[in-house]
Amino acid sequence: MASKSESKDCFGWAARDTSGVLSPYKFNRRHEIVGVVTAISTGVAHFKVGDIVGVGTYINSCRTCEYCNSDKENICAKGATYIFNGIDIDGTITKGGYSSYIVVHQRYCFKIPDGYPPELAAPLLCAGITVYAPMIHHNMNQPGKSLGVIGLGGLGHMAVKYGKAFGLKVVVFSTSIYKMEEALEILGADEFVLSSDEQQMQAFSNSLDFIIDASSGPHPFEPYMSLLKTEGTLVLVGLPGEIRLSAATLVLGPKTISGSLVGGTKEIKEMLEFSAANKIYPKIELIPITYVNEALDRVVKKDVQYRFVIDIENSLK
Amino acid sequence: MASKSESKDCFGWAARDTSGVLSPYKFNRRHEIVGVVTAISTGVAHFKVGDIVGVGTYINSCRTCEYCNSDKENICAKGATYIFNGIDIDGTITKGGYSSYIVVHQRYCFKIPDGYPPELAAPLLCAGITVYAPMIHHNMNQPGKSLGVIGLGGLGHMAVKYGKAFGLKVVVFSTSIYKMEEALEILGADEFVLSSDEQQMQAFSNSLDFIIDASSGPHPFEPYMSLLKTEGTLVLVGLPGEIRLSAATLVLGPKTISGSLVGGTKEIKEMLEFSAANKIYPKIELIPITYVNEALDRVVKKDVQYRFVIDIENSLK
Repeated sequence: MASKSESKDCFGWAARDTSGVLSPYKFNRRHEIVGVVTAISTGVAHFKVGDIVGVGTYINSCRTCEYCNSDKENICAKGATYIFNGIDIDGTITKGGYSSYIVVHQRYCFKIPDGYPPELAAPLLCAGITVYAPMIHHNMNQPGKSLGVIGLGGLGHMAVKYGKAFGLKVVVFSTSIYKMEEALEILGADEFVLSSDEQQMQAFSNSLDFIIDASSGPHPFEPYMSLLKTEGTLVLVGLPGEIRLSAATLVLGPKTISGSLVGGTKEIKEMLEFSAANKIYPKIELIPITYVNEALDRVVKKDVQYRFVIDIENSLK
Repeated sequence: MASKSESKDCFGWAARDTSGVLSPYKFNRRHEIVGVVTAISTGVAHFKVGDIVGVGTYINSCRTCEYCNSDKENICAKGATYIFNGIDIDGTITKGGYSSYIVVHQRYCFKIPDGYPPELAAPLLCAGITVYAPMIHHNMNQPGKSLGVIGLGGLGHMAVKYGKAFGLKVVVFSTSIYKMEEALEILGADEFVLSSDEQQMQAFSNSLDFIIDASSGPHPFEPYMSLLKTEGTLVLVGLPGEIRLSAATLVLGPKTISGSLVGGTKEIKEMLEFSAANKIYPKIELIPITYVNEALDRVVKKDVQYRFVIDIENSLK
């Protein structure tokens, strides 16, 4: 989106020392998240100037390995180039999307479906695909099956929305009782379990076909594995520290524990279409870039439902 | 096989106190492993007197749950009735197969393919199916893919044989250097790695599509998970104690760890046919029942390649 430039013509906000505080910054760059196509290179067939498009968590990959060749660029054998602080093929450091424009190869750029609000599309490209991809991969799109969602944040709330769209019975597990009303009445989950309440947990013993573990804090795994039915699968999409489990839990179950990391370009396109067709919208708080440092503080305190989206267009005017 | 009897007409060997020593014993019973059909009930269509048949690790299940209804009797929701010391639906305790005859429903009885040596068929019904079923379930039958096998015992040696029959590159991981020649020259594995040798282990980093973990002793998991390629799967078929893993290992891999417990009746039939068609024979030591206590001592000392099979027919004459 926009032609490559050699001059420091791009204006954005960045953290430039270890304090982590973001401030205005001019730099050479190639990158953003959701925006409008302002220019295209020769050979770009899928986009035209004026299209609303998005860029996900990675903006390049080797394009030759077995994974890239099967639309799984996210797990490129040479490592996908991530959008923030990644090292691109030309050696440059990627600079994210808090800026006036971004240049990206069409392969890693996605058309936002007509009518889908652009500010809501941005979280789809990270939180959305992170839960959608493993749900498809592990066949969680079977109506009538049951899904547990551990952690009701940016990832978890999208897992609830996709789960309901797939026709699943969705049970939310959270350490925060104040999330119950939100889970049941706003997001449409079928059940809410306060995970610190052993009795509530036991009531769901051997009842779930799948669990999406979107928590980022350390927690025990045996209590959740015991909620899975025979042949049940728990998929980690967060990074909750160490897993400790008895081998017998997996063998005698039998049960599976698996991890997942965003998704490939083909899955991202499918996820965008599915989200638009089913009117699945992330819940966001739209902020100007001047609010970004306060927003980061609030992210650390988990005080956000569920994603901040920065209105770059109006912020950088 | 043979009609149900109310008198103590069955002769076998059994451990009858906590010493674990087996001695001759007369009892009422219904159960064996591989033998000849001596009688059939009305309604038995699949077998005739004189057929060589086998019975696996379970001899009953509820026959009505979702698992039984999809040929996965091994993971019956009400619990399959195991052949040794299981509690059957009528409340009787199952008594295994060290005896003159066994009575079993045709559903849990399998015809041994013509020409397959009966004494070699017995271990297929436990060790064979235990590794064959997860190999099929996890698509390990793709020629050219690579398989690691942890532990070269009864289960592991069958995993090597099936792996080679599926056209896989097979790497054996063992703590016993003396198993190297056997692994490479007799079983036909492609590589042998002494798992205590860190350098040998690192040479296989990121190289395996699958691992069958057939070890029964506690061991670390991170070193083996690091040998898996992206999207690789480790399947536990043994019970090596506790699993400790970083969540990042599964998420960033992404990788999967799963367990498996024998197999369903349909898979057992397929495994028997596959084993016969590919001339896959377990390596056994045929013993008379009078040797059984010494054999059990040797099993504890891991001094067996790879299964003792008791020649009941000649032992109980």
